[in-house]
Amino acid sequence: MIIVMQSRATDEDIRHVIGRIEDLGLHAHLSRGTERTIIGVIGDERVVRRENFALLPNVEEVIPILKPYKLASREFHPADTVVEVAGVPIGGRHLTVIAGPCSVESEEQLLETGRAVKAAGARLLRGGAYKPRTSPYSFQGLGEDGLKILAKVREATGLGIVTEVMESSEVDMVAEYADLLQVGARNMHNTKLLRSLSRLQKPVLLKRNFSATLNEFLMSAEYLLVGGNSRVVLCERGIRTFVEYTRNTLDLNVVPAVKRLSHLPIIVDPSHGTGRHDLVIPMSLAAIAAGADGLIVEVHPNPAEAFSDGEQSLTPENFTKLMQNLRGIAAAVGRD
Amino acid sequence: MIIVMQSRATDEDIRHVIGRIEDLGLHAHLSRGTERTIIGVIGDERVVRRENFALLPNVEEVIPILKPYKLASREFHPADTVVEVAGVPIGGRHLTVIAGPCSVESEEQLLETGRAVKAAGARLLRGGAYKPRTSPYSFQGLGEDGLKILAKVREATGLGIVTEVMESSEVDMVAEYADLLQVGARNMHNTKLLRSLSRLQKPVLLKRNFSATLNEFLMSAEYLLVGGNSRVVLCERGIRTFVEYTRNTLDLNVVPAVKRLSHLPIIVDPSHGTGRHDLVIPMSLAAIAAGADGLIVEVHPNPAEAFSDGEQSLTPENFTKLMQNLRGIAAAVGRD
Amino acid sequence: MIIVMQSRATDEDIRHVIGRIEDLGLHAHLSRGTERTIIGVIGDERVVRRENFALLPNVEEVIPILKPYKLASREFHPADTVVEVAGVPIGGRHLTVIAGPCSVESEEQLLETGRAVKAAGARLLRGGAYKPRTSPYSFQGLGEDGLKILAKVREATGLGIVTEVMESSEVDMVAEYADLLQVGARNMHNTKLLRSLSRLQKPVLLKRNFSATLNEFLMSAEYLLVGGNSRVVLCERGIRTFVEYTRNTLDLNVVPAVKRLSHLPIIVDPSHGTGRHDLVIPMSLAAIAAGADGLIVEVHPNPAEAFSDGEQSLTPENFTKLMQNLRGIAAAVGRD
Amino acid sequence: MIIVMQSRATDEDIRHVIGRIEDLGLHAHLSRGTERTIIGVIGDERVVRRENFALLPNVEEVIPILKPYKLASREFHPADTVVEVAGVPIGGRHLTVIAGPCSVESEEQLLETGRAVKAAGARLLRGGAYKPRTSPYSFQGLGEDGLKILAKVREATGLGIVTEVMESSEVDMVAEYADLLQVGARNMHNTKLLRSLSRLQKPVLLKRNFSATLNEFLMSAEYLLVGGNSRVVLCERGIRTFVEYTRNTLDLNVVPAVKRLSHLPIIVDPSHGTGRHDLVIPMSLAAIAAGADGLIVEVHPNPAEAFSDGEQSLTPENFTKLMQNLRGIAAAVGRD
Repeated sequence: MIIVMQSRATDEDIRHVIGRIEDLGLHAHLSRGTERTIIGVIGDERVVRRENFALLPNVEEVIPILKPYKLASREFHPADTVVEVAGVPIGGRHLTVIAGPCSVESEEQLLETGRAVKAAGARLLRGGAYKPRTSPYSFQGLGEDGLKILAKVREATGLGIVTEVMESSEVDMVAEYADLLQVGARNMHNTKLLRSLSRLQKPVLLKRNFSATLNEFLMSAEYLLVGGNSRVVLCERGIRTFVEYTRNTLDLNVVPAVKRLSHLPIIVDPSHGTGRHDLVIPMSLAAIAAGADGLIVEVHPNPAEAFSDGEQSLTPENFTKLMQNLRGIAAAVGRD
Repeated sequence: MIIVMQSRATDEDIRHVIGRIEDLGLHAHLSRGTERTIIGVIGDERVVRRENFALLPNVEEVIPILKPYKLASREFHPADTVVEVAGVPIGGRHLTVIAGPCSVESEEQLLETGRAVKAAGARLLRGGAYKPRTSPYSFQGLGEDGLKILAKVREATGLGIVTEVMESSEVDMVAEYADLLQVGARNMHNTKLLRSLSRLQKPVLLKRNFSATLNEFLMSAEYLLVGGNSRVVLCERGIRTFVEYTRNTLDLNVVPAVKRLSHLPIIVDPSHGTGRHDLVIPMSLAAIAAGADGLIVEVHPNPAEAFSDGEQSLTPENFTKLMQNLRGIAAAVGRD
Repeated sequence: MIIVMQSRATDEDIRHVIGRIEDLGLHAHLSRGTERTIIGVIGDERVVRRENFALLPNVEEVIPILKPYKLASREFHPADTVVEVAGVPIGGRHLTVIAGPCSVESEEQLLETGRAVKAAGARLLRGGAYKPRTSPYSFQGLGEDGLKILAKVREATGLGIVTEVMESSEVDMVAEYADLLQVGARNMHNTKLLRSLSRLQKPVLLKRNFSATLNEFLMSAEYLLVGGNSRVVLCERGIRTFVEYTRNTLDLNVVPAVKRLSHLPIIVDPSHGTGRHDLVIPMSLAAIAAGADGLIVEVHPNPAEAFSDGEQSLTPENFTKLMQNLRGIAAAVGRD
Repeated sequence: MIIVMQSRATDEDIRHVIGRIEDLGLHAHLSRGTERTIIGVIGDERVVRRENFALLPNVEEVIPILKPYKLASREFHPADTVVEVAGVPIGGRHLTVIAGPCSVESEEQLLETGRAVKAAGARLLRGGAYKPRTSPYSFQGLGEDGLKILAKVREATGLGIVTEVMESSEVDMVAEYADLLQVGARNMHNTKLLRSLSRLQKPVLLKRNFSATLNEFLMSAEYLLVGGNSRVVLCERGIRTFVEYTRNTLDLNVVPAVKRLSHLPIIVDPSHGTGRHDLVIPMSLAAIAAGADGLIVEVHPNPAEAFSDGEQSLTPENFTKLMQNLRGIAAAVGRD
């Protein structure tokens, strides 16, 4: 942590800051420039709060130096983490595609989708039983009945199951059915939910909130890691910007950025990231070219009848086409 | 709902759309323009999903006409709603100021703050017992012990209590202690929590998520209203933008906009809305001038030692100054 | 400037950075922490480019310490600057209101507006002769004919004239007619235009670009100041965010922030800042309560027939009402 | 255009709107729904201003139906436009890479870069002679001397020249030297510059402003097309969002969106789109996978000594590596 003093700061102000640093069991290091005096704080700045210094007389700015996350950082864990989900690896050389409908609507719908996406090459099946909807008048999901349908279709198809959990009190129940528990974008900051999941023996798919910075995204992963669950898969699904044509702005920059800063695998959701089915294929290819470890794609046998997110769902035919086009890109970036 | 056909749409495409409208028990109304044919959907569009039409052949766009919220709208309820909290009205001619520390840290800290803000004119006391923090290494709140301290200070000062509830499973417990239950910005989309609170006999303070549109904000209020709780107070607390100098961008435009579209009272949080204690006073005055029904302000007896949000907390002295300055503004806009 | 080394940086890497600092005629100051080594650069960092260091081996980050602007800073010029425009002061204790139509449409329209806004208390008249429109099919302004109408109406009413200049080659011509030359939001980054205006003997109204940070805004002012023109009035007119209900998000936080960081006066444009005539009055009051030195407001005798920006224009009647309401706010914040 | 009446609108209000539509020589088409009456405007809505209707009594909303651009639309011109620049096609099956330094610094620097990028497979050379810099204290470009160096290096290498023009008064001079004239992101809204370029017999590279919507981007292209210059190449270079880790957020969604809505070619600038040299290669691959017609990449022989943008420049070695990696992606998406 660096403390920048205002130009009018007196020697007493500077002594005051240094005294405070030493009170906290840390060391100060003074550097007098031509226009500003700067005080470095030597020691673990994570135990210090900015306000401890920012509010002292004639302090201009407090600048943190260390990244706020530790266990999620590549510095702490240099090798790529590979997360295994129902026998399917996510990360490393493998490209993994998760596909399925936004909502579980019926056994028939899910089974048809599951068979189609498996035939096309998907390894895991997604489907929402609990749905966080903007409107109280929209379909809110089948709840535990939806989970039971997911379990049946797993048995029938052999696909591992990915589904969302929305509250800490439901973690145990959802974990009975799911192979990979999804934290939705709206819940990325739900610290109670993260803490419950951190004590679980199952992997977690952590979606980036649509207005989370990269630091905040990795800090939510840190909640999971610090509680003891190291099986974390990150997911970029678009951020909120001024852009109107697409539902969200897919931030693919974050893919190589995460690869640089963290050891955790990251996949991309081009369905929410665009909100338009006709952009899903090109943006899926782009995600893999940018270095993503996989995709999570919405597929519905009849999008015009979907209970939710029909406009961004692929038909099974288009999903098959996507999987064919992916092969060339995967080869070009050295992935399986 | 308006359905715009592409210029290349055939008569059959148009008949297809009309057939679908009629299948849903609604009526279609056709309008052929020089460049586009437009089909109006007559009936309650809230039962229809966009995707029912957006994915039909040669449909260009589906445009909703009605606002998605109903009970929250001023059209539904023309008069201003006044919410009473522990005998204190929020809304109408009254300006109500809620003040207190970000976190409850100790009985001594809260009592000192409570007495100071009461003396300055605040009517309700805020204080967080459950804290949703970005970092797992930060102070997470005292939990139920914090709630007990709040109750004690209520008894000692007579101030009503405002505190955050973070999960549906904790609603009943928090409701035992609080007079006004706060839904934090990170939980504005937490539909489980909203549904639990909608069945409660206590008023709710609903903070706008930092990337919520006005429609989304009012839709979260709709969750509360539709479940039967009409005692909802809205709160603008800043949105996330590209701006770096302030922690958030306080969107005061939303204050007169809410007044126009909804009957619910709205207050402003200038502490989170700026993130800087030296901007809190001018932005508080601005909020009241824009038509807000009150403020929620962070006050700490010693901000440099606060466990959280010290940089945006006022000292009791500065809070007293704020309350004095408010009087002139309140008079100028015809408020008490 | 602070240079943070990666944890794996060797002594040679550190010597390399120090060597480079000394080559540039500056001094290095080393601080070894527990997790990072930090090197302070002593001297005027404005002559150094970040890339000089950011690309050296095992440099993690380069953090500037000084503000990038100098002449625009309050540190350089502690007293408030008051800019005089045609005998009207902007800044200091004075509140100055500029009003008039978006575009000059005819002598009759401008004269009617000028007389009305003068009667209501406006001191300066705005009107665009050159209009930067998004669409090539929209009205582009009357050009020099518009300037001539402005001059006539100045003579008839005694009001000083505020109008936009869009290109450096037109600065001299516009300066013949205008008392205050406006740099529009789209041109805030137009460095050629800023340099031309910096050599002028007339004051400049610099509008903030709708995606400019505070530093960028003040750097555009710096272009004017460094060229010798110290008569600069800043103007906040709304930024672009994800918000849809209003045309822009009026960032009133910037008003007290500018007051803290700079000596230049700042006014607010609530017409562009909201895009809705029914929000203009409350947001005008909010701007003054936040500490703005004045307003620039769009007024049209018949907004429904305006060639541009009718939806955000006040009628003369509503402008008169605004001016009456302003008095109470002005008194409450100690302004004339 | 669709006009939505408020629920309280009377028959007289509706007749008023219809009368206004007919006064403008257009036809009205009335549709009475259960909650709202809607009036369709039949005829070319581009001649109508929203305010003509939005301000009439009890009008709730005015919704445009047609896209605001015409000549830039794929509806108007279904086939892909291919723009030829110094014998090099941009668009169609071809992938074209433009490379070179941010600023022309010297003949030696440019020649070295030109030879290196040509050897690696670039077809056009970029280099800025006029630089729009945020700070008046930064290097502002060599001006016409820079243009002369560009011409010399064209002669020596055979590479076509791409360089920025910043003002309409300089269009003719820059056009003497350049093969492709660049409109920078800060000038996308500079309508005077666009109009000058629209009369030119040379192709134009139009960079998207960092806060332009897709409609605004295509409207700037429309300015060029409507003036008679149909040789327009679009360029996505990143937008401004709340994201801090990268300089901008590269919005690759816009690539397939432009392909759908327009016939114009679009290339991507991963250097500005990320601001970090270590993200340039993966995001270049992603851009081509998303369907871009080419790239414009900053390359400098010694980035640490670059006068500008060194942090986002590739070395010639890394540029060669990029070009090799591109081949596989290009083949996978069926491009040359």
